[in-house]
Amino acid sequence: MPELRQDPVVGRWVIVASERTRCPTDFADHHNHVPEPRINPFSEGNEGLTPPEIFAVRAPGSKPNERGWKVRVIPNKFPVLRIEGNLDKEGDGMYDRMNGIGAHEVVIETPQHDQQLEEQPLEGVASVVEAYRVRIADLLKDTRFRYVLVFKNFGRDAGAALSHPHSQIIATPVTPKVMKEKLAGAQHYYEQKERNIFADILKQELRDSRRIVYQNAGFVCFCPYASRFPFELCIMPRRQLADFYRIESNEVLQLADILKIVLLKLHRGLNQPQYNYLIHTAPSRYAKKGYWTTLEQDFRWHIEITPRLTQIAGFEVGTGFYVNPVLPEDAALFLKDVEV
Amino acid sequence: MPELRQDPVVGRWVIVASERTRCPTDFADHHNHVPEPRINPFSEGNEGLTPPEIFAVRAPGSKPNERGWKVRVIPNKFPVLRIEGNLDKEGDGMYDRMNGIGAHEVVIETPQHDQQLEEQPLEGVASVVEAYRVRIADLLKDTRFRYVLVFKNFGRDAGAALSHPHSQIIATPVTPKVMKEKLAGAQHYYEQKERNIFADILKQELRDSRRIVYQNAGFVCFCPYASRFPFELCIMPRRQLADFYRIESNEVLQLADILKIVLLKLHRGLNQPQYNYLIHTAPSRYAKKGYWTTLEQDFRWHIEITPRLTQIAGFEVGTGFYVNPVLPEDAALFLKDVEV
Repeated sequence: MPELRQDPVVGRWVIVASERTRCPTDFADHHNHVPEPRINPFSEGNEGLTPPEIFAVRAPGSKPNERGWKVRVIPNKFPVLRIEGNLDKEGDGMYDRMNGIGAHEVVIETPQHDQQLEEQPLEGVASVVEAYRVRIADLLKDTRFRYVLVFKNFGRDAGAALSHPHSQIIATPVTPKVMKEKLAGAQHYYEQKERNIFADILKQELRDSRRIVYQNAGFVCFCPYASRFPFELCIMPRRQLADFYRIESNEVLQLADILKIVLLKLHRGLNQPQYNYLIHTAPSRYAKKGYWTTLEQDFRWHIEITPRLTQIAGFEVGTGFYVNPVLPEDAALFLKDVEV
Repeated sequence: MPELRQDPVVGRWVIVASERTRCPTDFADHHNHVPEPRINPFSEGNEGLTPPEIFAVRAPGSKPNERGWKVRVIPNKFPVLRIEGNLDKEGDGMYDRMNGIGAHEVVIETPQHDQQLEEQPLEGVASVVEAYRVRIADLLKDTRFRYVLVFKNFGRDAGAALSHPHSQIIATPVTPKVMKEKLAGAQHYYEQKERNIFADILKQELRDSRRIVYQNAGFVCFCPYASRFPFELCIMPRRQLADFYRIESNEVLQLADILKIVLLKLHRGLNQPQYNYLIHTAPSRYAKKGYWTTLEQDFRWHIEITPRLTQIAGFEVGTGFYVNPVLPEDAALFLKDVEV
């Protein structure tokens, strides 16, 4: 059983998932990359090799766990958190731990092994966005969960273990540290100014315009003012909404458009770099109704895209102090001009 | 001129050091590793190829910037922060920025290219520790600086650009985010319990003993309860002291001993993995005398060592939510048994 442990000084929760691992000495062989499986369990026709699907976008008349799907969501065969059980919390001397209860799902973005997300037609990308939306909405109904993380690791250095295009969803019994900090920062700003900080950021970016990469009717993509990484991107909705899963169908299409275009710009402009993206959405309000009442007005969901063009040095992880060798204004200018 | 920019939501400062960089399109060539220079500027006899030394441990009678040194501290030729100038702070609409004033130094740990820190004799490691101590003490006298970071990146994935054994020192005009969180967590604990949290952690680790890797008269090395990374290590002094630079000469030797031994255990047990270490020491009290009065009793300096055996996935950086595949108790048991 995986477990969650809390750092007593900074309050950060860590998943210790030792069931997934090899024995300690296996780590000595750190030059031995994990090989691709001989049979790709994510390709069409191999549905029987994966756990039964949780959700799929399918051709009319096709049956679950058979051919005919466009997007398929399945439980992760090697989950970092387990869906079954109760959230037993206990002290361990001065430390805190709890059972590793949660959900860990894989979103298979396409049946085609060699078609990256940005290379799909718009409707394909929209189906992936819709799968995210449906799964977040569903997982937040489970009152054991505080947060649902949706993210994509593209490339081995970015954390991907399989090359077939996929993203991941993890539902957690705690709100991750960075989310808490974003929520607290947004709340503090609202208390001081009675304005939404994300609305103010968007307004300043649009007025300044030097960091804008692309925009459409629903969304704006820009390089954040204090980007940690070269060519870091933020996709911000124009409409105030704390919860990603409450986007409407026209916004699903608009988001698919902007996601496809900016990922294509990265792909073509920077020679298909490894990257991660992450949806920052509001946590569950089930457990802390009073605490989160202001979320609707002070927080806005958004997406962070971080290309992995430089090494993440240990001191950056250890201190939270990043060195970015590219001016966000230069990165935006470069990406704006990449034709797609 | 590099600049510091602050994220308006979470308050994190980022160094944007675009002078160091190539043009944006160079990032497209992300498979082209930086080659080693043909002439190694860090080896003995090449002192003239580096900026003049700031500090050195030298054989009696040898002259600065000539042969005869054991450890040599020089300014970084490609600094992320500049030593000259004033700390101009300004708003940029709703954003905050300041001049990239600071110091960036390189500690050349040995004249020998192929001798890693842990392979040096004890006195050699002690000279490196003493160089850290002297430089931190000196840099904290500059009232523009709030913090002095001492860290080592070993291996390219860990952020090292040159293979000659070296570590780095960066003095910053702001206290890095993770340090602030550690200080705040420690202060909160002390307010609640009137006890030092690091003393309590050390006491529990010694009583429990399952996570202890090595100890000597002055220091204890253990795998933290909520380790983020496999085989993560913490070196904690037994004596309460907030500032690393105030260690005494016997502690310099004891620290050299424990550092040498645990790095040798990593080297031999895990096939010389890439790693980072980082000294967490108290910030300057110059600017905020009132705020930091309790530091002496509630904070304790310590060292974090993080081997890079797994990829740091983007979602971990983006959320602060780490997945560690090795139980800290298993990691400690394994390292304790590695003979050195």
